[in-house]
Amino acid sequence: MSDNYSKVLLEESEMPTQWYNVIPDLPTPPPPPLHPGTLEPIGPDDLAPLFPMALIMQEVSTDSYIDIPGEVLDVYRLWRPSPLLRARRLEKALDTPAKIFLKYEGVSPAGSHKPNTAVPQAFYNAQEGVKRLTTETGAGQWGSALAFATAQFGLDCEVWQVRASYDQKPYRKTMMELWGATLHASPSNLTEAGRAILATDPDSPGSLGIAISEAVEQAAQSEETRYALGSVLNHVLLHQTIIGEEALLQLAKVGETPDLLVGCTGGGSNFGGLSFPFLREKLAGRMDPVIRCVEPAACPSLSRGEYRYDFGDTGQLTPLVKMHTLGHTFIPDPIHAGGLRYHGMAPLVSHIYNLGLVEAEAIHQTECFAAALQFARSEGIVPAPEPTHAIAAAIREALRCKETGEEKVILTALCGHGHMDMAAYEKYLAGELVDYEFPEAAIAEAMANVPVIN
Amino acid sequence: MSDNYSKVLLEESEMPTQWYNVIPDLPTPPPPPLHPGTLEPIGPDDLAPLFPMALIMQEVSTDSYIDIPGEVLDVYRLWRPSPLLRARRLEKALDTPAKIFLKYEGVSPAGSHKPNTAVPQAFYNAQEGVKRLTTETGAGQWGSALAFATAQFGLDCEVWQVRASYDQKPYRKTMMELWGATLHASPSNLTEAGRAILATDPDSPGSLGIAISEAVEQAAQSEETRYALGSVLNHVLLHQTIIGEEALLQLAKVGETPDLLVGCTGGGSNFGGLSFPFLREKLAGRMDPVIRCVEPAACPSLSRGEYRYDFGDTGQLTPLVKMHTLGHTFIPDPIHAGGLRYHGMAPLVSHIYNLGLVEAEAIHQTECFAAALQFARSEGIVPAPEPTHAIAAAIREALRCKETGEEKVILTALCGHGHMDMAAYEKYLAGELVDYEFPEAAIAEAMANVPVIN
Repeated sequence: MSDNYSKVLLEESEMPTQWYNVIPDLPTPPPPPLHPGTLEPIGPDDLAPLFPMALIMQEVSTDSYIDIPGEVLDVYRLWRPSPLLRARRLEKALDTPAKIFLKYEGVSPAGSHKPNTAVPQAFYNAQEGVKRLTTETGAGQWGSALAFATAQFGLDCEVWQVRASYDQKPYRKTMMELWGATLHASPSNLTEAGRAILATDPDSPGSLGIAISEAVEQAAQSEETRYALGSVLNHVLLHQTIIGEEALLQLAKVGETPDLLVGCTGGGSNFGGLSFPFLREKLAGRMDPVIRCVEPAACPSLSRGEYRYDFGDTGQLTPLVKMHTLGHTFIPDPIHAGGLRYHGMAPLVSHIYNLGLVEAEAIHQTECFAAALQFARSEGIVPAPEPTHAIAAAIREALRCKETGEEKVILTALCGHGHMDMAAYEKYLAGELVDYEFPEAAIAEAMANVPVIN
Repeated sequence: MSDNYSKVLLEESEMPTQWYNVIPDLPTPPPPPLHPGTLEPIGPDDLAPLFPMALIMQEVSTDSYIDIPGEVLDVYRLWRPSPLLRARRLEKALDTPAKIFLKYEGVSPAGSHKPNTAVPQAFYNAQEGVKRLTTETGAGQWGSALAFATAQFGLDCEVWQVRASYDQKPYRKTMMELWGATLHASPSNLTEAGRAILATDPDSPGSLGIAISEAVEQAAQSEETRYALGSVLNHVLLHQTIIGEEALLQLAKVGETPDLLVGCTGGGSNFGGLSFPFLREKLAGRMDPVIRCVEPAACPSLSRGEYRYDFGDTGQLTPLVKMHTLGHTFIPDPIHAGGLRYHGMAPLVSHIYNLGLVEAEAIHQTECFAAALQFARSEGIVPAPEPTHAIAAAIREALRCKETGEEKVILTALCGHGHMDMAAYEKYLAGELVDYEFPEAAIAEAMANVPVIN
C-alpha cells in the first residue's frame, strides 16, 4: 500500500469463507431463551414454526466457525469484500493525531450491512422448501435487505413496515417493491396483533415490537411460511461477523492494530458483526482494543436498561430472552435513527456487556447529525442516521486524542448510507431536529410490564 | 482471478494518473466553436469570463495525455478506482452466452460519474483564486457532484435546479445543501434570463437550457465567480476518460476484449468517458469493438437531430457549437432520465458520430425500466434512469446473442445508482409510466430557431 491510501480493499479471493461464533470463546455462555409458558429453556422444536432448522442449529451452535455456503458467497461477491476506509480528510479537518478507519457496508445493494444476514437466511429457507418469508422493518433497511435476498432465491417476501416509517419514507417502500416484496403498514388489519393495537389506537404510528408480532403471527400460521429477523438473534450476529473478519485482514494489510472499536447498537447485529472477531483477538491476548457500544440517548437499552428476561416483541409472541431492556411495551421517541429504536438489545451483546468485556455510551441525535455533516463534507459519503452515532463517538475520541496527543487507531462501522434519509438531514439543516429528554417515566411504566423471573 | 468472479477491482496504485484526449487521434479535428456575434472561431480570452485558464487550455489541447493533479487524485481515491462488474446473474436470467460487463460509477459520493469532472473543475478554479462556482442541474446528479467537489476545495457553490426536478426531487436538493451548496429553482427571479421566461410563463417547469443561461449569466457578472458545466465540453469529456482507462485495465486483468460498447448519451460525457480510450485502441488496430450510443426516444439528438451550429443554452449566451441538435429552444417531454433531456450532444461525440466511428440507437423509457427491474432483481443494484438505457441496449444485444449463439463481450457503463429516483420506479411499478411519441412538430419548431451558418 502507498502511504496515502484512502481505502483498503480485499480481492474476492481473500473474502472470509467462515462466520465466527464468539460463544465458545466467552468465559460463560449466555443464559438460554425461555418458553414463556413453562419458563423452561426452549429447544429447537419450539422454534421450528418460525425458522428453518439450519438457522436454529446455528442459533444454538457451539462450533467456533461455520462455513458460508457457496451459494451465499456467490451473492456476497456482488458487493463484498466491502472497503475499509481511512478518513484522512476528516482527521485533517479535526486536526487530530488519531487514525480513523471505517468499515463501509453501504456498498451493498440495499445500502447497509443487513444483506449479510438476509442472504443466508433466504438461502437456508429456500433450501428447506420454504416458499414465503415474513418480516418487520422500521427504518426500512432490513426490509430492503430481505426483499433483495429473497429475489435471489425465488422466495416471496412480505414486510410489515412500521406505520410512521411507511408514511415518511415512500422511497424505501418502492425499493422493497422493486425487488418484488409485498408491503403492509403496521399495525395492520391482517393480524390479531395488529387489530388489537388498532382497536385501542386507530392512529398508532406503530413500533418495531408491534411489527415483529404481526410478522411472527403470520409466519406461525402457514406451513410454507417462515419468519426472518434482522438483528438480536445469535445466528444474525453470526452472519454479520464477516464484517469484522474482513476488517481484521484489512487492518493487517496496512500494519495497524485498533486501540478503540466503536459501533452503533440498535438490536446489536452491526456492533456484534464488527466487534466479535476483535473480541476473539482480545480474549486470546493478541490485541487489546477498548470496545464501545454507542446508542441513542432516546433509547439507551444498554446504558440505562435492566438486564432481565423480557419479550422481544410487544405482543409477547416471542420466547423470553435475557437482555438489557427498557421494557417490551416501551415505544421510543421518534428519533431519525429508526434502526436503533428497539426496546431491547441482542442477548449475546447484553451478556458480553454484563461480563464487562465491552462498554457503552449514549449520544443525542443533534450531535450525531452535526458529526455526520462534518463527515460528509470531508469524506463525501452521507451516512445513514444509525452510524452517525458511531461517527459522533469516533469524533469525540479523535478530539480527545488531539488534547492528549495520542495517535490512537479508531475503528468503526459505517453500516449504511443515508440516501433514503434525506428528510432527516433536511430537518437538521433547517434547525428543526430536536433532542428528547431521557424518557424516565415511559421506561418506568414499560419496565412494570416486564415479567418477573428468578 | 477465480473463474467465478463478480467484479474486477484495481488497487489505488493502479489508478490511471492521466486523462486521455482523443482529438489528436481522430482523422480530422472537430469544428471550432464560433462567437455568436462575429461567427469567428472563439479564442481562450472569449471563454475567460466563464472558465479558469487551466480548463480553457484543456478545452483546446492537442496533447494526447494530460496529467491528473495530485490533489485531484487524492479526492478520486475516496471512491476510485471504481469496480467493473460482471453481471453473471443477469446473464443467467437471460440465458445468454454473452458476457456482460458494467463499469459502475454509482460508488462515488454523489452516486454518479459526475464527480470525475466536478473535482478537477473545482480544483482548477480554486487554484486560480475563484471563490464561487455557479451551475445548473437537471436530475440533480451534476449539482450534487459539484456541491461535493466544491466542499473539498473550499469554494461556494450556487446551483440552478430545473424547477420540475426541484419540486419532484427534494432529496437531491437536501443532498446538495448538505454539502454546503445554495439552491435556486430555475427559472428564477435572480437573472434576466430567468425573469424573461417567467414573464411569458410564470409556471414554467424549466429546462436544462434555461438553467444554463441563468448560471452563465451570474458567473459572467462577478470577477470571483466562474461557471461549471457537467457535460458537453471537451474538458469535461477529457476528465471522464478515467472511466474507460480503468475499464481497459480491468478487462485486461480477466483477459477479455469487448465486442460491443454501449453507453447512454445525454450531453455525452458518460459515453465519451467510457468509449474514448477504447476508440483509441480501435483506431490503433489493437481491438475492434462496435461502439454504440443509446439515447432516449423522447430526445434523440444523435439519431434524429441535425449536425449544425447551435447554441448550448436556451438564452443564447453560449458560443455556437457544431453538434447534433434538436434545436436550443426544444423542451423534451418529461421522461425520468432527466440527465438525458438535453437538446444537443457534445460536439466531440457529434463529430465522432459524423465520422462514422460510432453508431446510435434510441429506446423508449418503459423498455428501459423493464430492463432495470430485471437487472435489479438479478444483480441487486438499482440503476439511475439514465443508465437504464444502456442496460436495455445491453439486454437487447445479449438476447440477440442467445439467438445466434455468439459469446460476445458487452461492456457498458452503469453511470449511477437510482436511490434518488424511486419516484420513477414507483410510477413504473404502478403501470403509470408512459412512452412519448416522437416529438416531430416540437423539434421542427425548435429547429426553425437554429441559426443558419454556412
